[in-house]
Amino acid sequence: MATTIRVTIWNEYRHERHNPKVAAVYPDGIHTTIARALETNGFQTRTATLDEPEHGLTKEVLEQTDVLIWWGHMAHKDVSDEIVERVHQRVLDGMGLIVLHSGHFSKIFKRLMGTTCDLKWRESNDHERIWVVAPGHPITEGLGEYIELEHEEMYGEHFDIPAPETLVFVSWFSGGEVFRSGCCYTRGRGKIFYFRPGHETIPTYHNSEVQRVISNAVRWAAPVQGAQRLFGNRPALEK
Amino acid sequence: MATTIRVTIWNEYRHERHNPKVAAVYPDGIHTTIARALETNGFQTRTATLDEPEHGLTKEVLEQTDVLIWWGHMAHKDVSDEIVERVHQRVLDGMGLIVLHSGHFSKIFKRLMGTTCDLKWRESNDHERIWVVAPGHPITEGLGEYIELEHEEMYGEHFDIPAPETLVFVSWFSGGEVFRSGCCYTRGRGKIFYFRPGHETIPTYHNSEVQRVISNAVRWAAPVQGAQRLFGNRPALEK
Amino acid sequence: MATTIRVTIWNEYRHERHNPKVAAVYPDGIHTTIARALETNGFQTRTATLDEPEHGLTKEVLEQTDVLIWWGHMAHKDVSDEIVERVHQRVLDGMGLIVLHSGHFSKIFKRLMGTTCDLKWRESNDHERIWVVAPGHPITEGLGEYIELEHEEMYGEHFDIPAPETLVFVSWFSGGEVFRSGCCYTRGRGKIFYFRPGHETIPTYHNSEVQRVISNAVRWAAPVQGAQRLFGNRPALEK
Amino acid sequence: MATTIRVTIWNEYRHERHNPKVAAVYPDGIHTTIARALETNGFQTRTATLDEPEHGLTKEVLEQTDVLIWWGHMAHKDVSDEIVERVHQRVLDGMGLIVLHSGHFSKIFKRLMGTTCDLKWRESNDHERIWVVAPGHPITEGLGEYIELEHEEMYGEHFDIPAPETLVFVSWFSGGEVFRSGCCYTRGRGKIFYFRPGHETIPTYHNSEVQRVISNAVRWAAPVQGAQRLFGNRPALEK
Repeated sequence: MATTIRVTIWNEYRHERHNPKVAAVYPDGIHTTIARALETNGFQTRTATLDEPEHGLTKEVLEQTDVLIWWGHMAHKDVSDEIVERVHQRVLDGMGLIVLHSGHFSKIFKRLMGTTCDLKWRESNDHERIWVVAPGHPITEGLGEYIELEHEEMYGEHFDIPAPETLVFVSWFSGGEVFRSGCCYTRGRGKIFYFRPGHETIPTYHNSEVQRVISNAVRWAAPVQGAQRLFGNRPALEK
Repeated sequence: MATTIRVTIWNEYRHERHNPKVAAVYPDGIHTTIARALETNGFQTRTATLDEPEHGLTKEVLEQTDVLIWWGHMAHKDVSDEIVERVHQRVLDGMGLIVLHSGHFSKIFKRLMGTTCDLKWRESNDHERIWVVAPGHPITEGLGEYIELEHEEMYGEHFDIPAPETLVFVSWFSGGEVFRSGCCYTRGRGKIFYFRPGHETIPTYHNSEVQRVISNAVRWAAPVQGAQRLFGNRPALEK
Repeated sequence: MATTIRVTIWNEYRHERHNPKVAAVYPDGIHTTIARALETNGFQTRTATLDEPEHGLTKEVLEQTDVLIWWGHMAHKDVSDEIVERVHQRVLDGMGLIVLHSGHFSKIFKRLMGTTCDLKWRESNDHERIWVVAPGHPITEGLGEYIELEHEEMYGEHFDIPAPETLVFVSWFSGGEVFRSGCCYTRGRGKIFYFRPGHETIPTYHNSEVQRVISNAVRWAAPVQGAQRLFGNRPALEK
Repeated sequence: MATTIRVTIWNEYRHERHNPKVAAVYPDGIHTTIARALETNGFQTRTATLDEPEHGLTKEVLEQTDVLIWWGHMAHKDVSDEIVERVHQRVLDGMGLIVLHSGHFSKIFKRLMGTTCDLKWRESNDHERIWVVAPGHPITEGLGEYIELEHEEMYGEHFDIPAPETLVFVSWFSGGEVFRSGCCYTRGRGKIFYFRPGHETIPTYHNSEVQRVISNAVRWAAPVQGAQRLFGNRPALEK
C-alpha cells in the first residue's frame, strides 16, 4: 500500500515527430508530458513508444508495470499482435490499463472490450464540458462539477463499447453531441479506465484537471493482491 | 404473451386545472394525452389522478395494472404514504413502473431508489437532444440516433440516483448540461424506467417519438411470470 | 413482433458420432434435441455443425438467423477464424447468441468477452441445483426457485468472465462449489446469454426446465429494430 | 490518504447481554470483537449501541465517522426513524456503510436498497464456503479462493436486493443453498458493502479471514473527496 505505484506511459509517438503543429504542443511527446505530471504526483514512471524494439514493452518492462497508459492514433495496425497478447495477459493478471482518447481503436482496447469501439468524431474545435456523473468515485477526487476544455476534438455517441461497470464522466460538446467519456471496466483481475480527451494538436494533457483525473485513475487501477484463482480439473471439497 | 398489457396512467392533474398555459397544451390532462397514444399502440389503458379517492389507486386498480405510469410535480407531499406503500409493494411483486420527468421527486421513486433523486433544472426553453446510448435495447425500438425537442425544461447532472442497471438515453442541452435521461432498474420482480422529458407547459407528450419511447417502455416493463421466490425459515435440501 | 423467431442451433457434433456413450444420450446430436424442443415452443429452427462447409454458417444462414445457439467442446480450435469473425459481426449487428456449457471456451465467446473464460471443472456426477437470483427476469419465466439436475459435470468459480450485466442463475454443486450459471451481456446491438449445464454424457437437454430456459433466452435475445447508429466524421448539429 | 480511517462499529448489543450462549462467544459484544480486530489493522475505532442515548449515533459521532459498521437482529424496529434518517443522510454525503449478517433487515439497509431485503434462513450449523467471484476487487485482498466457515447460520436465495454493482462473494451451504454474500453499492457519494456471515452464537467475527474482509471493506468504503455536486435552479453555462 505504501509502495510507489509504477506507471508506464506508452505513446505511438509519430505525430509529434512528423507534424510540427503537434510538436509545438508536445515537443517531447505526449508520453513525456504525462510522465512529468505523474512524477509530480509521486508516481514512478517510465515511457515506451511504438518504434522502440518490442514497442518498449518487453516482458521485463510489463512485469515491473503496475499501470499502463496507452495513447495511439494513426498506427494501431503497426502494433504487433504478439505484444498485444502480452499486454492482454498482463491486464488479466492484474495490471491496470488507462486508455486515452484515440486509443479507443487500439488493438488492446478492442480485444478487451469485444466490440468495434467505433464512435463519431469531428475536428472543429468544439467546446467540451466533461461532467462528473459519479461524484463519490475515487477517479473524481478533488474535481469540481465538470472539467472545461475550451477546444477539443469532438467524440460523439454512439460509442460501441460494452456498458461500463461504472460510468464516471459524460461529455457535452458545443456542436450538439454527448459522449461517455470516463468508463471503468474489470477484465480478469485488471482494472481498465477509458478517458476521452486528448487530441494531439490541443494542449489537453497540460491541463491540471486532466492530469488529476489520470493520477486518480492510476491509483484506482493499481493492482491489489486480490484473491487466489484456480482453474482446471479439481477434486471435490465435500464428499 | 398474447394478452393485452394493462396500463394505468397516474397524473397529479393540478397544473392543467389551475394554469391556463398548461391547460392550453394538455386540455384533458397529461394522463389523457398519454393514454390516447398508448391506446393507439394497442394497450388497454385507464387513468388515475391525485384528487380521486385513494388517488385512483385502489387495491383493485393496482391488481389490474401491469404497468403504472407516474407524472407528478407540485404536490408530491399530498400523495398519502399508505398509497405509496401499496404501489411499492406492487412494484416489488412485478408491476412495471414508468416515472416521467418531475416524478423524479415523487415519494414512490425516492423510496425505490434510496437516494434524494435531486438534480439541476432551468426553465429557459433549452433545446434538448436525447441521444440513444444503448441502441440494441427494446426501449429504443424504431428510433433514430436521437430525439430532438426544440424546447424543454433543462434537467442537468448531477442526478442523485443509483447507477442505472441500463442507461438508455443521455440528453444534451443547449445551455451546456447533460443528463442521464433514460434509466432502467429492477426492484424485486418489478421493472422501473425513468424517462426525463415532459415539462407541463411544453407539448412533449404530443411528440410521436416520445410516445414511442413510452410505448416501448411499457412493453419492456410489463411483468413476466418470473421464477418463484420463497423467504423465511426453510429446511435443508441436502443432508 | 408477431413474426416467428428464427433460431440456428450450432453443434460441434463430434462426440455424438465418435463416442457411443454420448450417442446413447443424443442419438441425433445435441443440436437436434434442442431444435425439437424449440420447435415445440413455436420457434423456426435450423441446425449447423462443425464439419459442414463453412461449419454450416454461411452468410445467408446467418442473415436469416435471429438467435444462434452454440455448443462446442473438443474442437474449438477447428472453428475457422473467418467464420468466427462473421458470427462476431452478426452479433454486434443484433443477432442474439446463446452459449451453452463447454462453449465457454469457444473462440466466439472469448472474443466477445475479452477474457480467458477459464473455469474449474470435474466429471464426477455432482448433484447440481441451479438457483434463480433474478426472479423477475424474462429468462426465468415459469420456473420454480431452482432447477434440479441429479447428475452433471461440475463447473466452479472462479469463472474468468466480465461481470455479467445481469446474473440470472447461480449453481450449487454437491462437491462444494458454486458457479455463475446464467449470465446476460450486450455487445453492440446483440444480446448474449451464457447458460452452464449440458455435459454431453448426461441427458440435460432432455430436461423440460432446461428447455424452457433456452426457449425463454431465445425470446429475450431476439433482435429488436433498435435505434440507428452512425459512426465516423460528422458535421456539427449546432453552430 | 495518509490519514487514519475512523470507524464506528454499531451493535444492537442485546443478544450478548441476555443470552448466555451468545455472551460465551462475544463476552464484550460483537462490536468490541470487531473493533479490536480493526485496531490491530491500524484503524481508529469507536463503538455505539442501541441502548445508548441516540443509539450512540449523535451528529458529532457521525460527523467524525468515515465508515459505519452495522450489526442488528432482534430489535430493528427499536431504532428510531430520526437516527435512521441521520445515518441515511451521512451515507449519501459520503460515509461508508458496512452492513453485516442480520443487518439485512435493518431500517437503514432497507431504506438504501428500496426493496424488502428478505431472504431464506436456517439455524442448523450448515457448513459455509464463501467463494470469491471478483478476485481483483480490493475487498478480496490477501484471500485464498474461498473462506471456510465450519458452522454458520444458512442464508439462501432468493435475497430480495437490487442487483449489486459488484458481486464479490457467493456462499455455498452444505444444506443445498447459495447466497450472494458480498455485495457492493453506491448511494449518493457513499459506498455500501453487505457481508453475510456472523450469526451471534458462532465465533465468526473471531475468524481472521472474516476480519480481513471487514478491514478491506473499510478501506474500500472510506470516503474520498469526490467531485462537487450542485442541485436546484441554475443559470445556463452557454448562451
